[in-house]
Amino acid sequence: MTKTLLLDCGSGGRASQRLINELFLEQFDNPILRTLDDAAKLELSGPIAMSTDGYTVTPLFFPGGNIGTLAVHGTVNDVSMLGARPRYLTCGFILEEGLDLDLLRKVVESMAEAARSAGVLIVSGDTKVVPRGACDKLFITTAGVGEILADPSPSGSGARPGDAILVSGAVGDHGLAVLGQRDSLSFLQGVESDSAALNKMVERLMLEVGDIHVLRDPTRGGLATTLNEIAGQSGVVCSIEEASIPIHDAVRSGCDVLGLDPLYLANEGKMLCFVPEAKAQAALDVLRSEPQGHEAARIGTVLEAVAPSRPGQVVLQTPIGGRRLLSMLEGDQLPRIC
Amino acid sequence: MTKTLLLDCGSGGRASQRLINELFLEQFDNPILRTLDDAAKLELSGPIAMSTDGYTVTPLFFPGGNIGTLAVHGTVNDVSMLGARPRYLTCGFILEEGLDLDLLRKVVESMAEAARSAGVLIVSGDTKVVPRGACDKLFITTAGVGEILADPSPSGSGARPGDAILVSGAVGDHGLAVLGQRDSLSFLQGVESDSAALNKMVERLMLEVGDIHVLRDPTRGGLATTLNEIAGQSGVVCSIEEASIPIHDAVRSGCDVLGLDPLYLANEGKMLCFVPEAKAQAALDVLRSEPQGHEAARIGTVLEAVAPSRPGQVVLQTPIGGRRLLSMLEGDQLPRIC
Repeated sequence: MTKTLLLDCGSGGRASQRLINELFLEQFDNPILRTLDDAAKLELSGPIAMSTDGYTVTPLFFPGGNIGTLAVHGTVNDVSMLGARPRYLTCGFILEEGLDLDLLRKVVESMAEAARSAGVLIVSGDTKVVPRGACDKLFITTAGVGEILADPSPSGSGARPGDAILVSGAVGDHGLAVLGQRDSLSFLQGVESDSAALNKMVERLMLEVGDIHVLRDPTRGGLATTLNEIAGQSGVVCSIEEASIPIHDAVRSGCDVLGLDPLYLANEGKMLCFVPEAKAQAALDVLRSEPQGHEAARIGTVLEAVAPSRPGQVVLQTPIGGRRLLSMLEGDQLPRIC
Repeated sequence: MTKTLLLDCGSGGRASQRLINELFLEQFDNPILRTLDDAAKLELSGPIAMSTDGYTVTPLFFPGGNIGTLAVHGTVNDVSMLGARPRYLTCGFILEEGLDLDLLRKVVESMAEAARSAGVLIVSGDTKVVPRGACDKLFITTAGVGEILADPSPSGSGARPGDAILVSGAVGDHGLAVLGQRDSLSFLQGVESDSAALNKMVERLMLEVGDIHVLRDPTRGGLATTLNEIAGQSGVVCSIEEASIPIHDAVRSGCDVLGLDPLYLANEGKMLCFVPEAKAQAALDVLRSEPQGHEAARIGTVLEAVAPSRPGQVVLQTPIGGRRLLSMLEGDQLPRIC
């Protein structure tokens, strides 16, 4: 194999076959992928969750992960958020001619390790190579499917007045870690992405606690945007205690310096969980017993939308006793963080 | 909506929501997509086929289709090639900041129409916007799932000596149409892409004929590459009558002028079908009764690999009585045709 990627590697000819055999098949190897048919044959039963996400993060490597781990964790998590057990992923690579093949190998190795660790198989894929300048190094789009574990399944429209609002850990790490790496900000050296698969934690919540109303991972747009989405879809008000939101000190101080709000920064290994009050402690106990959830916290309660509040609002109770609306931003504080 | 795409439209914030509501939801609308959860909830039973493909074609529009129709047809066809009924698609868009929104709307409208026409639902999606120069206008990655209609399902490793080799129509149109548009070659004006969904034809083959050994759509690398893949996976020899391969006159003469071989040009609405000799006529009859298959032809026979032939070889019987190996190319004649 040459050291940089040639346009021919996306042609469907011999050069493509070598790339597939020597890299993708070697790393992702499993009996389903090995058939090399146009589609993968899967054994799945019952209602199925399916999701897709594209990954264009820059830089490709950052503290705590890289574009490959993100592409696995992000889609595993999206499938999980329907209360499902993710089983299979597909991945589509769009690669720039001239890409360093060692770099590509590192990304693919990370994906393979992330998939093994999450217990999912990469069963089908596609590689396109575009001429130099037609894309920025490497984009990955994954899709995933899994079996839904409960009916009704958790949904953004499932929040009910009285529900406890839990978050599985500290927020803002991923967005700030990527920014720190991109802009070489030495004072952010202690900040690491939280990129992680949440499926095992979700499965325990579904099977051991049950009656989970909402699960959603606060990725792009962060905690604030995701809370707004849920409040809007469910037609309720989310009341959040600002002081109870877990935020690492390094993230808080980094955000202070940069003028960023950690509540709008992307996370890649956290989730919001809405459960009836009676289930709140059991759900928190499960979250805290898992490595990804040891900093889990209850951050608020769902309220009925009674005037002057309107359905879809997120109200932040500040530490000094004030109230303010936490609204959705027009755009984002940082582009290309996932 | 502004006339060009802003970076904020990929942020997850309000600008993203507007793009999703005013374009994607409006065009792809269905009850599953409308839940707007992180994953779609699907009803599927039995063994399932899943596939993904990325689309980076340039130019985005060409005679007979555009990147949006390709992104639907290509993945519908890949799922179908496992003898499956495609049901659901996801789509991931990677968009360049500054993209003309009217152009994006045209692509999305084409996708919606192609999906409706093929009888599949687009149930989940993702949009990333990268800064100007970080991608070439617009890439789409679709994934699809469907129900497999037979056990064993057709497979590239299913070819058996004695099988008849059928092709569902004339080859080379797509690759040449894209090239003609890209390079403004006026003598190729009569050449149109064959971009089309093959799922209805596949379903009829599976249910009315049965015992289909191999289905595969000769996309990148064309008919020659796909035959080589099948011969290799099945450990057989494909013997092909060159004169029986349907090729439109405009494609043949265009290839002559350009020094291209139509057998290596991409197709986006054709398939190879390997069936036992006893089923050959029935399969041809079904193919020819469908609009996409009216030029279907039998082009050869599967042989045992007896020395001096080796497993994996494709032997072309020329019109003047000669024999030559039709081998796989190292790269491709044309990049970015799908």
